[in-house]
Amino acid sequence: MLRKILIVGAGKSTSYLINYFLEKSESEKLHITIGDINPKAISEKFAKHAACTIVKLDVFNDEERQKAINNSTIVVSMLPARFHILVAQDCITYSKHLITASYISKEIKSLDKQAKEKGLVFMNEIGLDPGIDHMSAMQLLDSIRNKGGKVLLFESFTGGLVAAESDTNLWNYKFTWNPRNVVLAGQGGAAQFIQEGTYKYIPYQKLFRRTEFFNIPGYGQFEGYANRDSLNYREAYGLQDVLTLYRGTLRKVGFSKAWDIFVQLGMTDDSYTIENSLGMRYREFVNLFLPYSPTDSVELKLRHYLNIDQDDIIWSKLIELDLFNPNKKISLEKATPAQILQEILEARWTLDEEDKDMIIMYHKIGYKQDGKKYQIDANMVVIGENRTYTAMAKTVGLPAAIATLLVLNKKITTPGVQIPLTKEVYTPILKELENYGILFTEQQVPYVGYNT
Amino acid sequence: MLRKILIVGAGKSTSYLINYFLEKSESEKLHITIGDINPKAISEKFAKHAACTIVKLDVFNDEERQKAINNSTIVVSMLPARFHILVAQDCITYSKHLITASYISKEIKSLDKQAKEKGLVFMNEIGLDPGIDHMSAMQLLDSIRNKGGKVLLFESFTGGLVAAESDTNLWNYKFTWNPRNVVLAGQGGAAQFIQEGTYKYIPYQKLFRRTEFFNIPGYGQFEGYANRDSLNYREAYGLQDVLTLYRGTLRKVGFSKAWDIFVQLGMTDDSYTIENSLGMRYREFVNLFLPYSPTDSVELKLRHYLNIDQDDIIWSKLIELDLFNPNKKISLEKATPAQILQEILEARWTLDEEDKDMIIMYHKIGYKQDGKKYQIDANMVVIGENRTYTAMAKTVGLPAAIATLLVLNKKITTPGVQIPLTKEVYTPILKELENYGILFTEQQVPYVGYNT
Repeated sequence: MLRKILIVGAGKSTSYLINYFLEKSESEKLHITIGDINPKAISEKFAKHAACTIVKLDVFNDEERQKAINNSTIVVSMLPARFHILVAQDCITYSKHLITASYISKEIKSLDKQAKEKGLVFMNEIGLDPGIDHMSAMQLLDSIRNKGGKVLLFESFTGGLVAAESDTNLWNYKFTWNPRNVVLAGQGGAAQFIQEGTYKYIPYQKLFRRTEFFNIPGYGQFEGYANRDSLNYREAYGLQDVLTLYRGTLRKVGFSKAWDIFVQLGMTDDSYTIENSLGMRYREFVNLFLPYSPTDSVELKLRHYLNIDQDDIIWSKLIELDLFNPNKKISLEKATPAQILQEILEARWTLDEEDKDMIIMYHKIGYKQDGKKYQIDANMVVIGENRTYTAMAKTVGLPAAIATLLVLNKKITTPGVQIPLTKEVYTPILKELENYGILFTEQQVPYVGYNT
Repeated sequence: MLRKILIVGAGKSTSYLINYFLEKSESEKLHITIGDINPKAISEKFAKHAACTIVKLDVFNDEERQKAINNSTIVVSMLPARFHILVAQDCITYSKHLITASYISKEIKSLDKQAKEKGLVFMNEIGLDPGIDHMSAMQLLDSIRNKGGKVLLFESFTGGLVAAESDTNLWNYKFTWNPRNVVLAGQGGAAQFIQEGTYKYIPYQKLFRRTEFFNIPGYGQFEGYANRDSLNYREAYGLQDVLTLYRGTLRKVGFSKAWDIFVQLGMTDDSYTIENSLGMRYREFVNLFLPYSPTDSVELKLRHYLNIDQDDIIWSKLIELDLFNPNKKISLEKATPAQILQEILEARWTLDEEDKDMIIMYHKIGYKQDGKKYQIDANMVVIGENRTYTAMAKTVGLPAAIATLLVLNKKITTPGVQIPLTKEVYTPILKELENYGILFTEQQVPYVGYNT
């Protein structure tokens, strides 16, 4: 019998997801329907495939949405997270399994009882981060616990970066995902985590100055800044008694200290708009955040304000962005500082067609066993092919695609609203990911505890 | 005929307000009813006065509230701002004038049409700041415009401080008003203002490092940091074309740079709670915001983190607050960092019974007339008597009290929801305030424009 997979939303991150289903369409007897608000933007390669149908689907059009969902066996929602709930409610109504790569919202969570009653799997957070981070961490943690180890320390970092061969700017960074999220990163509350048994809190104004450093063998030096949510998965991971619990974001060394310049200036603020932003020059934009002077230059004011030496590499990073250019103009009307900064950065940090991105995930787990302390370092590096087939799209899309097939094939059967923390889920998915080059390198290292 | 004034809420700021009415009760034929949730806390002196009745009034008890309002000629609401609307709606119903010292809320604003239809004066923002600032500024601005001047620059600063003789700590500061507002000052969005024709924005993380300095003759050096709302009254003040528009808060020199330590640490954050705050030691609290170290002291970590030299006066300010004391404990359960910081500060910054507070207001107005540029500096200094009869209570309460009498006596008659910007309102109020020692010293100084 033909199994009908409905993919709602065919954005950037769906290239590998769709490919995976189409490759297996014959052997697995799959038909793929891609529903998107803008069907013309979908690759011809997919449109022409015999096992693929493309339909216009406006998620706010109840009739279109319900018809498509009712006509499917399983639904993969790749919409922005806030729209999943519309799809999820119909999945309850028409008894369809649901797969998303997004964080579980309260609304989705509230469908748990209904999903269980109907025997439906609602699998969420099955992408990269969240997704592969959960699965790889749980596999490591379970294996330590199974041999009688007690986990003392858990640190985990993920970064969407640019591969060395495409790393052509002083920031060692290009946008490989939603640039808006990068500009707003860290806002909305203090980062909270635990270090050697003590709670620690970092406010936004210090977040990018409290980095930690790592070496990823073969890939060089990286730094990590704390995520807001390190403590969110404490219970889910079974780490109630852990002494150190820290989750963060990876960047090449030096990025965060330079990024902090934007934070200190106030350029990442998204809470108010600048009336006359359209046509404003980059240089004028910078000057909005500096004291008035009838004589001093914008450059000197900024250097003095933020104490930047003239031979500091940070200065070259700002110059590279053309930040003081009196000719370049902002094209956004009534934009927030964050939106304007994003425009300035996108002019320099957008991937070229042949640029390769790079995902790095790094886990550091310390544990005690038979009175001795041990530490495992595990890292995963995935390099993209080009701007369309990115490592980001691969690591987000493949876990969701694999999970979809496992649900269809009744290898994942536990019903309810869930995230991939159980052996039933992570074992077959991590195994299949290895076939696509997504795998961790583990090494036992001496236990060092928390980096001081 | 006896005029019945109802005062709703008899908090700290009402001592001078009530005194003013009682002093005039005979000559002006007034009866005062004070309605408060906790009538026992009201001074005996008031309770015993023949012209004064004290009643229990729970503002959420519709019957109590409506009965009291219906039975009055005019209502003065001294409740926290968010509760005014309950009183204001009844004032419409029973056709009573209303006086408040708070910022106009949207809800209050929406009653404008009804108030006008019924011929009711709803006077708001008639305290110190807002209040005296509006009236004194408008008097100066109107007089400049009346003689043909064009205003180029308007700066205005207000501070609730401690008088020199009661200034006994290194911060040169004590709480003379709601401590919570002091701890949270500047949060919630960037400060926005105009300097020499250019918009300027200061984010919270730089607010306390972008101060300006002033000398108030006879009172020494002060500094000002920007308020969030400098542009709010631009149109109301008729300053659409002004080149510089800046409103701020005054402190003694050196306060803000030291306060910035708390900002940078994250101690002013009110957005999350600290689980185990009850019984936590001051020293542990500080350590929450510092990196982990198995060996280094909290003191050295803080000095290094925020780059404080060992001979910096800022360090002595922190020591004075007992911030590193391992014995002093926090008494608040599940408190936010801001609440805990407030508790620590209140232990040191609370006024003693005989302490005198000090209000300073400073206006700097530049203008052009007949081709020449001029500048007026005007300042008001009010010193309190003791912890009960504070300069703050005087400058907040008297304008409201005076306005009440002027409305009763039909000197202020323009109906509607308003703030004190017109000559009809500010002239008699400022004149009467002079009788109580609340007055401005003006001097013509050379035009300097914006301080660079």
